[in-house]
Amino acid sequence: MVASETPGATSEAPAPWTSPEYVDAVIDLLGAIGYGELSAFQRMGEDAKLAPTLTDQIQMDRLATYEFAHLEAIAARLVELGADADETLGRFQDSFETFHEYTSPADWWEGLVKVYVGDGMARDFYREISSMLDPETRAILLAATDGGGHQDFVLPRVKAACDDDARLASRLALWGRRLMGEALSQAQQVIAQREALAGLLAGGPAMPGLDLAELTKMFGRITDRHVERMKALGLDH
Amino acid sequence: MVASETPGATSEAPAPWTSPEYVDAVIDLLGAIGYGELSAFQRMGEDAKLAPTLTDQIQMDRLATYEFAHLEAIAARLVELGADADETLGRFQDSFETFHEYTSPADWWEGLVKVYVGDGMARDFYREISSMLDPETRAILLAATDGGGHQDFVLPRVKAACDDDARLASRLALWGRRLMGEALSQAQQVIAQREALAGLLAGGPAMPGLDLAELTKMFGRITDRHVERMKALGLDH
Repeated sequence: MVASETPGATSEAPAPWTSPEYVDAVIDLLGAIGYGELSAFQRMGEDAKLAPTLTDQIQMDRLATYEFAHLEAIAARLVELGADADETLGRFQDSFETFHEYTSPADWWEGLVKVYVGDGMARDFYREISSMLDPETRAILLAATDGGGHQDFVLPRVKAACDDDARLASRLALWGRRLMGEALSQAQQVIAQREALAGLLAGGPAMPGLDLAELTKMFGRITDRHVERMKALGLDH
Repeated sequence: MVASETPGATSEAPAPWTSPEYVDAVIDLLGAIGYGELSAFQRMGEDAKLAPTLTDQIQMDRLATYEFAHLEAIAARLVELGADADETLGRFQDSFETFHEYTSPADWWEGLVKVYVGDGMARDFYREISSMLDPETRAILLAATDGGGHQDFVLPRVKAACDDDARLASRLALWGRRLMGEALSQAQQVIAQREALAGLLAGGPAMPGLDLAELTKMFGRITDRHVERMKALGLDH
């Protein structure tokens, strides 16, 4: 493991990638992200059954397998960091399963919008958080923001369906807001429950981190991009 | 596409890999196998939820992603052969969904035995049938017999559980026989419904194929190997 590469030689102390506080925090973070990927894989596989055609179903299944590949990379990093990968993932099972219970799609369209919103938010979050992380972990998260084509799959399908059906558009606009609300609510609960993770996000003596103002700004940026994506779908009522 | 490589220069005519009858038959065959892989992926993803631990669940999900990778290779070959991959897969949807409805596992153990039996039979069938096929298609089926580790995953778990529980062992022995019976019954119906496929299996003027006696022997060998595998599980009552 190369852990010496620090971003720029500024007057600040080098990022303490080896401190126990940092390692605990990044293990928590990867556990949360990893379980998120696992549950996305599982739920997309289920939601694929709502597809109107076999072609759409297979494409949704294909996108699901990308989530599983991300999980594999994350689990391997957890092992490198000395963690028990499955135990670490398991810490976040309840939160994600609660999220998915509250956001079980009623039909194919809600399933598509959920993929679009979830994939978009995950990628924004990975990009934002990766700037605080050691180079190896950062590389894994940035790799997970690439590929799959979730947005390209969803966009034309939902736009075409909503062009023909104003009631569907209005229902999906509401659904998009609900997904975002539930995601933020579960994310906040996870951060509150996991001290190490909260330490990473809020920063501290042994941690690069963000202060509270920056953290608020980060969630603000993620929310803004969600709104932009819903606009791209034509669902910005 | 290289389609000139024929197995050995015997006195027989070279296998007619380019005849319309052969191409139709191999398209049907790949459609059946491909839908089988797709439905295995989907059902294993569902049955993974029965797992007693997150580790087992993730491992079952991982095995499922192998089935999807096989499907991708098969779908690519269908396109090379000039077929609409999804339409071809769709021809076999009802048969496989009926099979899965009749063999929905009641618990984790039945799910494990289903993976073991299904994977074993599929691999035996791919090996048997591949000897009748053009080199490209043969290579894809033989590649699909490799990897995944389904047998190694299931064997120790089921053996350990049955050692402690004679009633479970007896139930799973019955379950294994039922899976085999349902699989053979659906396979026969598929062959009866698909003229091109029946032509491939039974042989004919434009087809290498097997005669009826050889076909019966092939199914006999697959059944024998199933019985051996159930014996290896300790479920040969």
